[in-house]
Amino acid sequence: MPLAPSRYYTIPMHYSNAFIPTLREVPADALIASHRLMFRSGMIRKLANGLFAYLPLGLRAFRKVEQIVREEMDAIGALEMKPPVVQPGEIWKESGRWEAMGDAMLRAKNRLDNEFIITPTAEEAFTALVRDELSSYRQLPLTLYQINTKYRDEIRPRYGVMRGREFVMKDAYSWHCDDESLDQTYQAMGRAYRRIFKRCGLSVIPVKADSGAMGGSGSEEFMVESEIGDNTLILCKSCDYAANVEKAACALDYSPRFSLDLAKAAASETPPYEKVPTPNVRTIEELCAFMKNPDGAPMNANQFIKTLIYRAVNVELEDHAAAQAFFAVAIRGDLDVNEVKLAALLKAGEVSLAADGDVERLTGAPLGFAGPVGLQSLPLVIDHTVTGMNDAVCGALEKDAHFRHAAYGRDFTAALSGDIRTVKAGERCSICGGELYEKKGNELGHIFKLGFKYTRSMNASYLDENGKTIIPTMGSYGIGVDRTLASIIEEHHDEAGIIWPASVAPYHAIIIPIKYEGAVKEAADRLAADLEKAGVEVLLDDRSERPGVKFNDADLIGIPWRIVIGDKGLAQQQAEIKHRREKESRLVALDKAADELAEAVREEMRNEQ
Amino acid sequence: MPLAPSRYYTIPMHYSNAFIPTLREVPADALIASHRLMFRSGMIRKLANGLFAYLPLGLRAFRKVEQIVREEMDAIGALEMKPPVVQPGEIWKESGRWEAMGDAMLRAKNRLDNEFIITPTAEEAFTALVRDELSSYRQLPLTLYQINTKYRDEIRPRYGVMRGREFVMKDAYSWHCDDESLDQTYQAMGRAYRRIFKRCGLSVIPVKADSGAMGGSGSEEFMVESEIGDNTLILCKSCDYAANVEKAACALDYSPRFSLDLAKAAASETPPYEKVPTPNVRTIEELCAFMKNPDGAPMNANQFIKTLIYRAVNVELEDHAAAQAFFAVAIRGDLDVNEVKLAALLKAGEVSLAADGDVERLTGAPLGFAGPVGLQSLPLVIDHTVTGMNDAVCGALEKDAHFRHAAYGRDFTAALSGDIRTVKAGERCSICGGELYEKKGNELGHIFKLGFKYTRSMNASYLDENGKTIIPTMGSYGIGVDRTLASIIEEHHDEAGIIWPASVAPYHAIIIPIKYEGAVKEAADRLAADLEKAGVEVLLDDRSERPGVKFNDADLIGIPWRIVIGDKGLAQQQAEIKHRREKESRLVALDKAADELAEAVREEMRNEQ
Repeated sequence: MPLAPSRYYTIPMHYSNAFIPTLREVPADALIASHRLMFRSGMIRKLANGLFAYLPLGLRAFRKVEQIVREEMDAIGALEMKPPVVQPGEIWKESGRWEAMGDAMLRAKNRLDNEFIITPTAEEAFTALVRDELSSYRQLPLTLYQINTKYRDEIRPRYGVMRGREFVMKDAYSWHCDDESLDQTYQAMGRAYRRIFKRCGLSVIPVKADSGAMGGSGSEEFMVESEIGDNTLILCKSCDYAANVEKAACALDYSPRFSLDLAKAAASETPPYEKVPTPNVRTIEELCAFMKNPDGAPMNANQFIKTLIYRAVNVELEDHAAAQAFFAVAIRGDLDVNEVKLAALLKAGEVSLAADGDVERLTGAPLGFAGPVGLQSLPLVIDHTVTGMNDAVCGALEKDAHFRHAAYGRDFTAALSGDIRTVKAGERCSICGGELYEKKGNELGHIFKLGFKYTRSMNASYLDENGKTIIPTMGSYGIGVDRTLASIIEEHHDEAGIIWPASVAPYHAIIIPIKYEGAVKEAADRLAADLEKAGVEVLLDDRSERPGVKFNDADLIGIPWRIVIGDKGLAQQQAEIKHRREKESRLVALDKAADELAEAVREEMRNEQ
Repeated sequence: MPLAPSRYYTIPMHYSNAFIPTLREVPADALIASHRLMFRSGMIRKLANGLFAYLPLGLRAFRKVEQIVREEMDAIGALEMKPPVVQPGEIWKESGRWEAMGDAMLRAKNRLDNEFIITPTAEEAFTALVRDELSSYRQLPLTLYQINTKYRDEIRPRYGVMRGREFVMKDAYSWHCDDESLDQTYQAMGRAYRRIFKRCGLSVIPVKADSGAMGGSGSEEFMVESEIGDNTLILCKSCDYAANVEKAACALDYSPRFSLDLAKAAASETPPYEKVPTPNVRTIEELCAFMKNPDGAPMNANQFIKTLIYRAVNVELEDHAAAQAFFAVAIRGDLDVNEVKLAALLKAGEVSLAADGDVERLTGAPLGFAGPVGLQSLPLVIDHTVTGMNDAVCGALEKDAHFRHAAYGRDFTAALSGDIRTVKAGERCSICGGELYEKKGNELGHIFKLGFKYTRSMNASYLDENGKTIIPTMGSYGIGVDRTLASIIEEHHDEAGIIWPASVAPYHAIIIPIKYEGAVKEAADRLAADLEKAGVEVLLDDRSERPGVKFNDADLIGIPWRIVIGDKGLAQQQAEIKHRREKESRLVALDKAADELAEAVREEMRNEQ
């Protein structure tokens, strides 16, 4: 017996009192199923662009997702707290994000000219609060979280609550004495996230940052497949490899030659490189059309070396450390440079293609004629694939000219080589060699080893066993509650409406009396009361609508179990029971319906855990 | 058995994991007990002026208050929803409050120059959402509420969360076909509010707007006594009369004479009024010193008629309806005009003293010489007390002159008379004649019949049975959650710390093992597990601190039941149990402790309901 009996769940909700304004029409701006269905089922309404109100039915489902997140956070020892939503600008200036976050952050000034932000995330606030309390290593590790309102100023808010301006996020932050402790919490979070999504009935794709390219697995995104996803995922058909295309590893199936001797040997049969005139031929497409193989067939893109000039900012690479530096980046002609991987390889804050003027100045040739052979002015960075090229065509570093028969190891070498290539569907998996394919995905959650970024800039520290001042390392872990809720609908719906998993259903069961009067009303009331007593949350459709209207609404709002009570069944002391997923209903004895249904709900909830 | 077993309450919280940074020092800016104790017990921390973070212990208590409010709202059929915290400026312009709310409202502009507010209250948002869904009288009455973040830009935020800038408010709004329906919901809210405060262990003073002055009991404030209260309350020593001094009714113990004949009769013995020179004598104090009674004694303030010129805005009074109008307002010299009552009597939006220039222009005399006798240029409004004055001194409407022997009914009459006087401690109760006294109070909740203000300005309407378009009437009902929580501490604390009522205690019980090791640890762990199983929320003090430190912390954070387990008791299979309110502990058998304590918690919670 709970000590604080909630009056809440002891009152079966009557449909006519529940304010569920269902709609037949689909709003013109609702492009995805969850937006359409949340709107049509009366879960949400729009107050302004990107600003939604959850109506009572929507809020019930929303709170259940929140509660699942809360329970799993509590279960791993994270502690919930509640910082303000309106936060002082000062702490964002301390961390340097006052500028960095740009226009996506909503700022406000009050009458005293104090600057505030409507918080988009809370690394600063949590770190500011913790640094004042942190004194000893004995207080660590510490994991705190909130489930609270956030605001990000999406320029084009779309897809309902999937990409709104105001949203609710669970954001957790942890502080640690060392990497091992951080990793323990990070792993526990990863497991908690998997449980959360499982309990919500969601098939998520956990996407790890690739250890090859990014130097350590310090980040994992939890994605759901979505046609309107922000992210392109690369998945393997044969194993469970999954990566964001921004970071996906490449299989080394292009015979890279890491040894210059091997490369030279491979080039021994290749004629010496020679210049060929290529007037106005700049792009790979133009080269393919212009250059011919010995047999007269047009050359293929994979026979060319594409050389691009990149500008890199805040480079921390040994020998090349600089606030700004330029690099020539060479890759096989049929492939694309992945800028995230390139930045990681260069240990740069950011990379971008150099301006045309810089290209001409640095290569001595107009755009389209850069190449690795004879390049002196710039460090050359090559993708692994280039190490396997021993008879290639490349720019000759002068207008209207290319070299042919260029060979890596013989005619040029690189300052740096690595995997800087964007993976494509159809390639081989770097783990198992299986075929890779692409999916669009939406990020629901992200766990991330932050390191010292905030603790250092905001002066958080503690004393270790020896009384030495140490800066703690930090992790950050987010889940979007609205987006999780919308994704559940994306995965669980049909033509007629939503199909809620029991764990997040706004009500477990809906009782539909064919006519809410006389003996049928009495039986419906009794069953509703019995179900509530057994812990089943019931919506009782007391409206004087036609049965067809009630059935349609029940399907639209997606209540898992439907019990129909009519005169005919009642004469046999029976009701019709049907799960939202099933086509056919079955008869149950009225006096057993409550127990049977409670057990069915319990069973489904157990399966979801 | 609950269908969704919460993992949350099955894990006894270890003190060393709970992040409860208690403090001995009192922060300099903490002027009241609740602020001091919430800070010292590690419930809250300040992030910026008026912006507080609830730490884990504080949030647990906060959520319990929220949940009590939620349950009582749900119990009367109110439906919870969740509009955004960031709201579009447009709807505030529609209602006219974009201007009216002034600088207390925090405004923001995003990159697209859209105007937003961080919502201080939500009449507009709820009305905007409801008007789009409302079509038929069958949908009414409807009551919706939220428990959500609000922001008001207090110029001088003080007293911790009692008067912060960001806070959480439960705000409910209801829509009705008629006054009777509105009154039903209003009364149900009043009862729900009483239950909420009772369950929180609070002694509230429900303060009704006075029906005499305000024309109908359409407003009730729920106050708690507080030395730093914003409100002055007038209470009766003999009955339960309680009113805000702004609206408190006056007993008619000043023999008002509503009949002019009676007034004239009373004046029959009074000599005709005559002018007396009063050079530079303007104020009541100066008059008292200057004017003498026949026996030579100085005159008393209650022998003068004080006449003030008021400017009233949006007057809806019959015969005097105007966007702006001036009135002469007369009251007995020892009394003060209550502007709220005056505005109500004049059916005016607002009243304020006229500017000096207006006074001279309208009375033909400098400030200090206005009076009712011979006044032509202005309608005269008098307080009831003036009707009983048959030999008074008043301004003569010219510089340096007063009349004496002025008598109401004989020498002047009024356009309007009523109770427009501010009540004072020591006066008689208008209900029972008992003695009135004053208290300072803080408002925790307010229920209010709004009428058509928002539904009319924002074009909300429905069709009645006959297909006629009707504007619904509306009610508004708020409770400050933070302020309620702080008030509980104000009422329940002692020198050593907080004394939580069980209903809102962050934990019901704290187990203190004298040393958390060996058999004592085992017994403490077992008892904690048994208590959690019985539904008692337990904090287990596993720290290696001295018992004195643990006892002090337990007292400071105010956990209702304390169980101490030590070697000596354990040898007898006993533990010491003590309620926070009690001085002495008593021994209980360890194997009965869980059952006994669970029953005690249950008992206290029952008593609070």
